[in-house]
Amino acid sequence: MNSKVAAFDGWIRSDFVTLNNELEALYFEQDDKANVAGIGEHAKQQLEAQGREHIQTLLAQGNTDEGFDRAFDLLGNVGLYMAACRRHGLSDPDRDSSSPQQEASALAMHIAASIGVVPRFATAHLCTHNRAVDGQYKRFTDLTDERVFVDYNSKGILAFKRAADALMRVLPLGVSHPIARDLFHACADALEEVKESNRVLFNTLDPERFFYCVRPYYKPHHVGGQVYRGANAGDFAGINVIDMLLGLCQANEPSYGRMLVEKFLYMMPEDQAILRDCMRRQSLMDEFLAVAPEHHGSSWYQENLSAFLRLCELHGEIATQHHNQLVHTYIVRPSEQMDQKHMGQLTASGPALQGLLKALTDLRDRRAGAPREDILTRYNELAHLRASLG
Amino acid sequence: MNSKVAAFDGWIRSDFVTLNNELEALYFEQDDKANVAGIGEHAKQQLEAQGREHIQTLLAQGNTDEGFDRAFDLLGNVGLYMAACRRHGLSDPDRDSSSPQQEASALAMHIAASIGVVPRFATAHLCTHNRAVDGQYKRFTDLTDERVFVDYNSKGILAFKRAADALMRVLPLGVSHPIARDLFHACADALEEVKESNRVLFNTLDPERFFYCVRPYYKPHHVGGQVYRGANAGDFAGINVIDMLLGLCQANEPSYGRMLVEKFLYMMPEDQAILRDCMRRQSLMDEFLAVAPEHHGSSWYQENLSAFLRLCELHGEIATQHHNQLVHTYIVRPSEQMDQKHMGQLTASGPALQGLLKALTDLRDRRAGAPREDILTRYNELAHLRASLG
Amino acid sequence: MNSKVAAFDGWIRSDFVTLNNELEALYFEQDDKANVAGIGEHAKQQLEAQGREHIQTLLAQGNTDEGFDRAFDLLGNVGLYMAACRRHGLSDPDRDSSSPQQEASALAMHIAASIGVVPRFATAHLCTHNRAVDGQYKRFTDLTDERVFVDYNSKGILAFKRAADALMRVLPLGVSHPIARDLFHACADALEEVKESNRVLFNTLDPERFFYCVRPYYKPHHVGGQVYRGANAGDFAGINVIDMLLGLCQANEPSYGRMLVEKFLYMMPEDQAILRDCMRRQSLMDEFLAVAPEHHGSSWYQENLSAFLRLCELHGEIATQHHNQLVHTYIVRPSEQMDQKHMGQLTASGPALQGLLKALTDLRDRRAGAPREDILTRYNELAHLRASLG
Amino acid sequence: MNSKVAAFDGWIRSDFVTLNNELEALYFEQDDKANVAGIGEHAKQQLEAQGREHIQTLLAQGNTDEGFDRAFDLLGNVGLYMAACRRHGLSDPDRDSSSPQQEASALAMHIAASIGVVPRFATAHLCTHNRAVDGQYKRFTDLTDERVFVDYNSKGILAFKRAADALMRVLPLGVSHPIARDLFHACADALEEVKESNRVLFNTLDPERFFYCVRPYYKPHHVGGQVYRGANAGDFAGINVIDMLLGLCQANEPSYGRMLVEKFLYMMPEDQAILRDCMRRQSLMDEFLAVAPEHHGSSWYQENLSAFLRLCELHGEIATQHHNQLVHTYIVRPSEQMDQKHMGQLTASGPALQGLLKALTDLRDRRAGAPREDILTRYNELAHLRASLG
Ligand code: HEM
Ligand code: HEM
Repeated sequence: MNSKVAAFDGWIRSDFVTLNNELEALYFEQDDKANVAGIGEHAKQQLEAQGREHIQTLLAQGNTDEGFDRAFDLLGNVGLYMAACRRHGLSDPDRDSSSPQQEASALAMHIAASIGVVPRFATAHLCTHNRAVDGQYKRFTDLTDERVFVDYNSKGILAFKRAADALMRVLPLGVSHPIARDLFHACADALEEVKESNRVLFNTLDPERFFYCVRPYYKPHHVGGQVYRGANAGDFAGINVIDMLLGLCQANEPSYGRMLVEKFLYMMPEDQAILRDCMRRQSLMDEFLAVAPEHHGSSWYQENLSAFLRLCELHGEIATQHHNQLVHTYIVRPSEQMDQKHMGQLTASGPALQGLLKALTDLRDRRAGAPREDILTRYNELAHLRASLG
Repeated sequence: MNSKVAAFDGWIRSDFVTLNNELEALYFEQDDKANVAGIGEHAKQQLEAQGREHIQTLLAQGNTDEGFDRAFDLLGNVGLYMAACRRHGLSDPDRDSSSPQQEASALAMHIAASIGVVPRFATAHLCTHNRAVDGQYKRFTDLTDERVFVDYNSKGILAFKRAADALMRVLPLGVSHPIARDLFHACADALEEVKESNRVLFNTLDPERFFYCVRPYYKPHHVGGQVYRGANAGDFAGINVIDMLLGLCQANEPSYGRMLVEKFLYMMPEDQAILRDCMRRQSLMDEFLAVAPEHHGSSWYQENLSAFLRLCELHGEIATQHHNQLVHTYIVRPSEQMDQKHMGQLTASGPALQGLLKALTDLRDRRAGAPREDILTRYNELAHLRASLG
Repeated sequence: MNSKVAAFDGWIRSDFVTLNNELEALYFEQDDKANVAGIGEHAKQQLEAQGREHIQTLLAQGNTDEGFDRAFDLLGNVGLYMAACRRHGLSDPDRDSSSPQQEASALAMHIAASIGVVPRFATAHLCTHNRAVDGQYKRFTDLTDERVFVDYNSKGILAFKRAADALMRVLPLGVSHPIARDLFHACADALEEVKESNRVLFNTLDPERFFYCVRPYYKPHHVGGQVYRGANAGDFAGINVIDMLLGLCQANEPSYGRMLVEKFLYMMPEDQAILRDCMRRQSLMDEFLAVAPEHHGSSWYQENLSAFLRLCELHGEIATQHHNQLVHTYIVRPSEQMDQKHMGQLTASGPALQGLLKALTDLRDRRAGAPREDILTRYNELAHLRASLG
Repeated sequence: MNSKVAAFDGWIRSDFVTLNNELEALYFEQDDKANVAGIGEHAKQQLEAQGREHIQTLLAQGNTDEGFDRAFDLLGNVGLYMAACRRHGLSDPDRDSSSPQQEASALAMHIAASIGVVPRFATAHLCTHNRAVDGQYKRFTDLTDERVFVDYNSKGILAFKRAADALMRVLPLGVSHPIARDLFHACADALEEVKESNRVLFNTLDPERFFYCVRPYYKPHHVGGQVYRGANAGDFAGINVIDMLLGLCQANEPSYGRMLVEKFLYMMPEDQAILRDCMRRQSLMDEFLAVAPEHHGSSWYQENLSAFLRLCELHGEIATQHHNQLVHTYIVRPSEQMDQKHMGQLTASGPALQGLLKALTDLRDRRAGAPREDILTRYNELAHLRASLG
């Protein structure tokens, strides 16, 4: 890391956090906790100005070509800064036609284009690729609830990745392979970890603190002239790998396909490659369906299919837990209680809350293989496979 | 190519063209040649229905994983179909909130995401990657002016690529290498070809025919819920490689950077990789500037710099020719004469004509190294280098 | 899979196995079980001739470009055939100056070069990428001991890969990150699985059967004019990723570096990429050593380092188990009992047994961090880190 | 470049050359110019010791991960040093069982494995990727004949690459495309440049100087325990791309296939990728043969085929020129005149001269499409295509 990059990183890890802490305290003591207008103007100006100064230095230094990892890390720092500006109302897509943070936009666009990702911070910057120094990783604030949120996002993501790794390793072996069974069990273990980690998150995270002091850093905002949706914990390949390899979701279904298209540049390049590779594969469910007529009597079929169906169940349970507990408790309910004038600025992904909820409900039902008339789920195929057991 | 893909390809190369021919004849005999409303409704319905039928078959067949080349080719066919639908008013971003061609959208999004490009036809589909069968490549119509336009776009693009290849090969050698001179000359030859090819295009292409019967196939349109800008002859890496390696444009300048960001997914993956690689390089102009104080007396400096400056001149001449001749004659002038009610639907990239012209003017001036107060050009640096010759 | 490829695959999965079974039975009933000369000549000729016929058809068909997976699979089939020829004395590097299986050599070289691996079967063909049909994967014979050997190789490899995945995910986080702890535990679980799987293998595999009827298919042999060493269970990236990220082995140490160089083309291209990426990283041990002076008092240091040192212990235990149990029982001891005239043809990797044993001993001691005067191990650094706990 | 790498680079560009100059002068004034034994021992020791010192410093510094370009460049410097040691008899594969330059071997193996190339200098290090400083690129000596040899190798290689670029761009268009004609002409221009450049080389290079003072730096030598053949001007993808796309050589022919296999790691990774991609393509000659029956009457057929056949002619002429002029004048003839005791150490690729000549003759005849009974050439197909013109 050259000295200018290091100086900016040092600022992000220290004064930047202090200023955000200070502002969160001021916002939170209000009756309308969602209000940021007219509060802490001095701290806001400091935050914007100090960040700008670092970024101007970096722009002037120009391209130093230190490899992907460092470029990605620097983009994360610029992205944290821009997200904080947006959280504090220093940029606002409803008000501005382009980002007021011009230098940050220029730097972010240059880096992002050169490494093939969106020009804003992504989930990877906070979770899987957030370097800790003396035990402390990068963050917006020192609030416990931010830490809890990031920790359990990270745990969930890493366990989902482990589950996806296992499924991908089944592909070259085929569903009848004796080792496929081991891999299905490894996958189940990982999914159990996701479930447990979500459970702890649900029992630990405070809804109000999360809603008013953490989530606002994840809003959509401008970079240059374009608005980019907020980062979310799903911005990695693994979750969709599981969807598609289990056969619960299909890339050529319009709404699911659109979600994939929209999501690519929010993922690390290696995740993009993994997801692309999976999109051209046949699902394991379809493999089972194809051999069921001839082989349902074999012992491998009975054993491997049981292990496989357990995965479908678990994946559905996690989706239901996510939807019914996390989304409901941390977004839907607090937003109902919030002053309605702030509704427009609510969701991380941009679409208004109702649209978002509908999309998430559909996704939950696909993952759970629930019976639905209006969208394609694998309810019938799962029933058929279940019937072939025993 | 499997038989369903082949059947669709056959249709695109035959009936699809016949129907477009028929419709163009009807539109063109009107006083208001820009009107499509209420004209040739039967042919339009046939075109939409026949294409849809092929596409439904392909969606049902599902993922056949035949490799990048075939996926890209099929995406091109879906894209030509969707572009023709848009040209004939069967979709219209001003009217629809999402594409009425739902099956085509689903197929396009699936393929596009799986290969990492936009879900619409791109320039490569018509120019550099348009397979000819018995001497005939894919096209919308049999109009001579469409053929001329595509031919000279292709020639220009291929010559620009050749020029870019030569410059990229200078990078590992350095500007003082004796072989750099050879490469500068190879680059100059290629740029002369671009210039000549543009000249012939300008002398051959009919402005009215182009404006009314060719360009409308290149309009922005929906794929699923998102609008994608039209393809343009600049959607390949080479042109920006030349811009940046000559040092005339910089990726960390906001407006140029934004153009690069926006353009990535319109290029073939191999072009994306080339462009990314170039973005992290130092420009050859900066290399000359760095050694000028110490080495301007050397014979290699004098010879190599002369050859290099000739390239900057040529690149500027081509940009000026493109702007003052092609853009002016084939877009600006006819649009002034067109019924003003159609103005909203004019440009390929979506921004209104004035904005587009301003952006193209800036680009021309950067490439020409013209003196400008309001944007960064390399006017001074070029003058400085020129002065060091002699 | 086109029909000619499928026909060859069918043969490999049926008659090929039957012929090998028949020959193994004949060899094994001899007093000198290592002898193949003059035994089962008719079956040998059939095997060679039937395979050649399939391969000639495939050569004549020419390049069908069906993607990496199918090419790799076909190479595996050609490779199994060539390895069986070598096992039955139909080729012999001590006798021939190039492979008598000329068509197979030509096909293998073409495919291998086009996908970037060695032109012979590799471990991946039998373990991680061996597609099962109706529960049965590809194999040489129906002997239980071959199945046990392949199964437990596969289990070990997959668990090592899981361990390596976890360590690689620590890299962007740093050793002080709270999530690093989770990843160290995931790594430990995977290494425990390796240990357990090796234990079961040791308790199950019959030394004599293995030595006389399984191992001979893994001998070095010619492809064209070059001899390629036999496949071994270490031909995947994960094991070296663990070596290097734990910091127990270094790529710039001559003997370890040579092993890496030699091994690259025996791995799948994705494993080659993983290994390359790891070679440029700093090890986690070096990261701990760098922060120890300042941070050994922190709780994260104490907890994360404990978890890390447990990994080093486990990796050493597995290496010791491999060496002292597996290598000794299945190779050293039986070879001492074998008729000494066969010694020249013994090892899979080509170097004579003594050389091989010395290299394996060194590797064991590096992995175990044992005190050695003559080669570099991390004995002192491990002691130093251990002392900083408490 | 960090300071230790820069120091070594400085040495390679200065004292290293001076020492080689001095030694060449001493050798060349002998009657037996091929002798190096007992000559200039002090200079030899200096060269070995000075280089070793730099390399030890670099090994101690460890892995600095500065990206591919710098790693490749550093490998080149280590490689030049090892090649010079071999040229001066400080290593000798006939005498040593492994390289006496142990530190250099360790460094070379580490870098090479991490970037996927052979651990020795390759042609790219001297030609296409040899950075010039103040007009001067890296070299062994200041001899004019070395410079001439490197310059014309570079010119030839770059022109061949240009020719290959053009042919690869025909692939997605098909041989009947109107733009294919332009690309065939671009290819012909490039091949004419190769021919001319070889002609000038032949008229300029002194056979004796080349044979005694330049070529010896290109001998096979050990790196670690393995001998690597010398670099040659053919170690780039373009030449084989032309061979295969023209259809004159086939990757599934054993001897040609073996050459490709053997050559991969001597090329830059990007060239490896290009060559791999070409190996799965159908040749343009086969495309013409397939459409000839139906389309030989079309004007596109007549025009495009004429242009194509001109390329085959040119490629044959260049191969013949290379063989009959360059190989004969600069290798065969001087070696006949040389003291026969040095014969064993003659060729760059290791095989004895006779074997090499046979292989090169076969290659020439394939490229020229000459009638041969014993190997496959396209003589008949070319005659058939020629007959279809007119
Ligand atoms: C009738 C002929 C042509 C017309 C009317 C024309 C017009 C335009 C317009 C309006 C744009 C802006 C695209 C947009 O943002 O909507 C554009 C872009 C571009 N055109 Fe053309 N063009 C023509 C032919 C060519 C040819 C033959 C080339 C040579 C390859 C070329 C190269 C480019 C490039 C490189 C761009 C991208 C913007 C840039 O980097 O300059 N154009 N053209
Ligand atoms: C004094 C000049 C040259 C001599 C004596 C010479 C000699 C040779 C020899 C002996 C080989 C076989 C290498 C081996 O296997 O050891 C070879 C290979 C090759 N040379 Fe040259 N060469 C010369 C210049 C050139 C030039 C200027 C080019 C143009 C780029 C060239 C292109 C090739 C190619 C492509 C090969 C690889 C084998 C093949 O594909 O033909 N050579 N050369």
